[in-house]
Amino acid sequence: MDLLLDFLTRFVTQFQSPSLAFLIGGMVIAALGSKLEIPDAIYKFAVFMLLMRIGIDGGMAIREADLGDMLLPAAFAALVGCLIVLVGRVTLAMLPGVKTEDGIATAGLFGAVSASTLAAAMVMLEADGIAYEAWVPALYPFMDIPALVLAIVLADLYLKKRKAGADAKVRIWPIVKESLQGSALSALLLGLALGLLTRPDQVFEGFYDPLFRGLLSILMLIMGMEAYTRLNELRRVAHWYGVYAAVAPLAHGLIAFGLGYLAHLATGFSPGGVILLAVLAGSSSDISGPPTLRAGIPTANPSSYIGASTSIGTPVAIAIGIPLFIALGQIVFDI
Amino acid sequence: MDLLLDFLTRFVTQFQSPSLAFLIGGMVIAALGSKLEIPDAIYKFAVFMLLMRIGIDGGMAIREADLGDMLLPAAFAALVGCLIVLVGRVTLAMLPGVKTEDGIATAGLFGAVSASTLAAAMVMLEADGIAYEAWVPALYPFMDIPALVLAIVLADLYLKKRKAGADAKVRIWPIVKESLQGSALSALLLGLALGLLTRPDQVFEGFYDPLFRGLLSILMLIMGMEAYTRLNELRRVAHWYGVYAAVAPLAHGLIAFGLGYLAHLATGFSPGGVILLAVLAGSSSDISGPPTLRAGIPTANPSSYIGASTSIGTPVAIAIGIPLFIALGQIVFDI
Amino acid sequence: MDLLLDFLTRFVTQFQSPSLAFLIGGMVIAALGSKLEIPDAIYKFAVFMLLMRIGIDGGMAIREADLGDMLLPAAFAALVGCLIVLVGRVTLAMLPGVKTEDGIATAGLFGAVSASTLAAAMVMLEADGIAYEAWVPALYPFMDIPALVLAIVLADLYLKKRKAGADAKVRIWPIVKESLQGSALSALLLGLALGLLTRPDQVFEGFYDPLFRGLLSILMLIMGMEAYTRLNELRRVAHWYGVYAAVAPLAHGLIAFGLGYLAHLATGFSPGGVILLAVLAGSSSDISGPPTLRAGIPTANPSSYIGASTSIGTPVAIAIGIPLFIALGQIVFDI
Repeated sequence: MDLLLDFLTRFVTQFQSPSLAFLIGGMVIAALGSKLEIPDAIYKFAVFMLLMRIGIDGGMAIREADLGDMLLPAAFAALVGCLIVLVGRVTLAMLPGVKTEDGIATAGLFGAVSASTLAAAMVMLEADGIAYEAWVPALYPFMDIPALVLAIVLADLYLKKRKAGADAKVRIWPIVKESLQGSALSALLLGLALGLLTRPDQVFEGFYDPLFRGLLSILMLIMGMEAYTRLNELRRVAHWYGVYAAVAPLAHGLIAFGLGYLAHLATGFSPGGVILLAVLAGSSSDISGPPTLRAGIPTANPSSYIGASTSIGTPVAIAIGIPLFIALGQIVFDI
Repeated sequence: MDLLLDFLTRFVTQFQSPSLAFLIGGMVIAALGSKLEIPDAIYKFAVFMLLMRIGIDGGMAIREADLGDMLLPAAFAALVGCLIVLVGRVTLAMLPGVKTEDGIATAGLFGAVSASTLAAAMVMLEADGIAYEAWVPALYPFMDIPALVLAIVLADLYLKKRKAGADAKVRIWPIVKESLQGSALSALLLGLALGLLTRPDQVFEGFYDPLFRGLLSILMLIMGMEAYTRLNELRRVAHWYGVYAAVAPLAHGLIAFGLGYLAHLATGFSPGGVILLAVLAGSSSDISGPPTLRAGIPTANPSSYIGASTSIGTPVAIAIGIPLFIALGQIVFDI
Repeated sequence: MDLLLDFLTRFVTQFQSPSLAFLIGGMVIAALGSKLEIPDAIYKFAVFMLLMRIGIDGGMAIREADLGDMLLPAAFAALVGCLIVLVGRVTLAMLPGVKTEDGIATAGLFGAVSASTLAAAMVMLEADGIAYEAWVPALYPFMDIPALVLAIVLADLYLKKRKAGADAKVRIWPIVKESLQGSALSALLLGLALGLLTRPDQVFEGFYDPLFRGLLSILMLIMGMEAYTRLNELRRVAHWYGVYAAVAPLAHGLIAFGLGYLAHLATGFSPGGVILLAVLAGSSSDISGPPTLRAGIPTANPSSYIGASTSIGTPVAIAIGIPLFIALGQIVFDI
């Protein structure tokens, strides 16, 4: 009873976080019909800055990290990415009124990762003084790529099976390549390479890191407004998308939390790392995923997967998921 | 005599301010035919940052303010906004060669408020070490909304009276709503709400406040270039617009200064607050006003009111009004 | 032998510079087919910030400088700008397969100056603790304008001579004016004037200077991607452009280094100043030059001169030229 109360208190405390406030503020002003517009160039720049910040920091951390420590969390990240897609394949994609390839694409997007959600969690962990290995955010591609690839492969297999007699092989490398060349992953990997191979400390500390927090608040605001706007799209597809999008971020995060806890027991993976792994799993891709899926599963309806992710999945992951996983971590690890 | 000399010295000293320098620099390079262009996305972003900075700071200040202290200045702000429109209605809008609804729209724009002018005055007050209550900039909507609403109502009444037999009621709420949903006021109110209800101190001090000063210099530059470019538009309408636009910012500011002084005597409203109230009254809207007026008084000619405000009203308000009101305040309050 | 080894060590050390790393990173990800895009508005804003930063700082420095000290370096800057164009006129423009006016335009672009290359060198000198007079970057227009003007005049003379009987005079003032009104030079001169005539210290130290370094890294990235993309254009013109673009930055820089050394002996021009003069000479214009040349020599093929400058000239000037001139300076001046 005390534990539950303690948990609830910690959960509610997270709502003072400015990141959440900006997200919710964005939803509220969009609902009130505000004509506020943040230019698209600023949105793209903010996303680029976030990814570079995460990448450079990750690269600098990997330079000094014991690679052995990264092995298990990276494997778990990939495992979770695949698990999410498989679970979506046998749940959402099977439901009545859900076109199978639409369901698979949605599962792929929820398996993929959102840099903004990750960044919001990083800032909130920092505000709470919860430490994590600096390389944890660099687990991003380990979860993102397998999820997108698996979703496209499963959709391909399904569509080919439907056509009698077709048995052409699914080629995986082009999907991986498409995913790596996308703007999000290539910015992240560029940052990783720069952090790993060069000495960007000064430009990181004087530019990418300080601007990151501020631009994150603007991104949250845009995502909030976007979430409200996309709700209309979601209304036009089966209600199951809404149910899935509301439940999946929390369910996926809890699975990842469990695996992260195993890594904690096995190799001392930090509490903050476990929480971030859960946040990565709970997040759904808002930048890199949609174009990759659009190219990879051209017959799937973008309204279904983008609507589900942007208007419900992301707000749930940020506004409920992050506080939940942080409060859970505080209880479990007694911090 | 000494007093006049003292006043003139203080007035001239203000011209070293970088804000004025950037404004005048913008006019000069535009006059010299410079092809310099600041992307529109940067302009919009700078305006957004200004409004959020003013809003968040105002919200945090209101949280700790004695609301009773705000009452009189807020009432005076609304009074000044309405007074400006009424004065414009019986002066500019009556003049020969001025179409009545164009004159009313112009008066509405001069009653409304400019965030950049306000921000320039805030930075200049700070440079001079003149304190003001942190909630003063949040008086913005109290002057802005009544002025725009009253202008649209007056124009409506005039146009309906002209049509024989028309006596449909003017509906005020849609005008207020339109005004609140505009990009400027919704950003300002969002900032106010975030400052009031959440704890954005860190992102305010690390992002919105420091960038605010720099982006203001860029806004001043753009406004200077814009002022020169719009002069052509102004040439095509009656010369009375030029006269009004040159005199009104100073006259309006002096009226507000007088009312502010009353508030100073009555409730101890700060000298800096009195100066800012005068600046608010002297400023004319460059962002929120024009679209609201365009929607509210569709038959009015935008060249007249935007030209008058952008090319003469704003430069006069910033480059003459602010130094004037500051010097006046220094003499009156002996600071 | 030791000297050579010392030189090579110093040369290689420069490659840890983040500026170079971002440039090379940009080329690598473009070659790998990345779809990363930095919005054009951000690119233009970054360039504007660089030029304002260089201009304001230069203006503030000139305010306190002994103008006599600037005289010789400024004269040498103009001399180098003209020399580069004349050398290009009698080498590149004479080669088989090179259209004469294309060759002259290319020489003009290589005589003109790149703000980003200059900025990269400034940051690298600072990282090495090599001092220079703060007014040195303000030598920019002294080299830039003469080079562009001379190129346009030479092209005009050539084209008129070709038409029998034509002897209309070439008018120089319109070319100078066109060049001064271009976005790059007008931003730089605005910054100079603001630094010289007003007190922008606070906005300089709080905004232009700190953002300058970070935005430079983004510019380098964009220039790297652009360099790779433009290679295709270059492939469609004569190979001599590639040879010229690879050799010219280093040759021009060495000429300027020699002249700078003379100024060092004559008037004590600083080692850092000598290096920056070489960098200015080695750089080729990426912003102001192309539109001026396009207007001034309309029959020249932009693919040839822009391709040569962007895809080979600039990367060579930054990634080989700057480290080379710094290492040379360290040896020559024993610093």
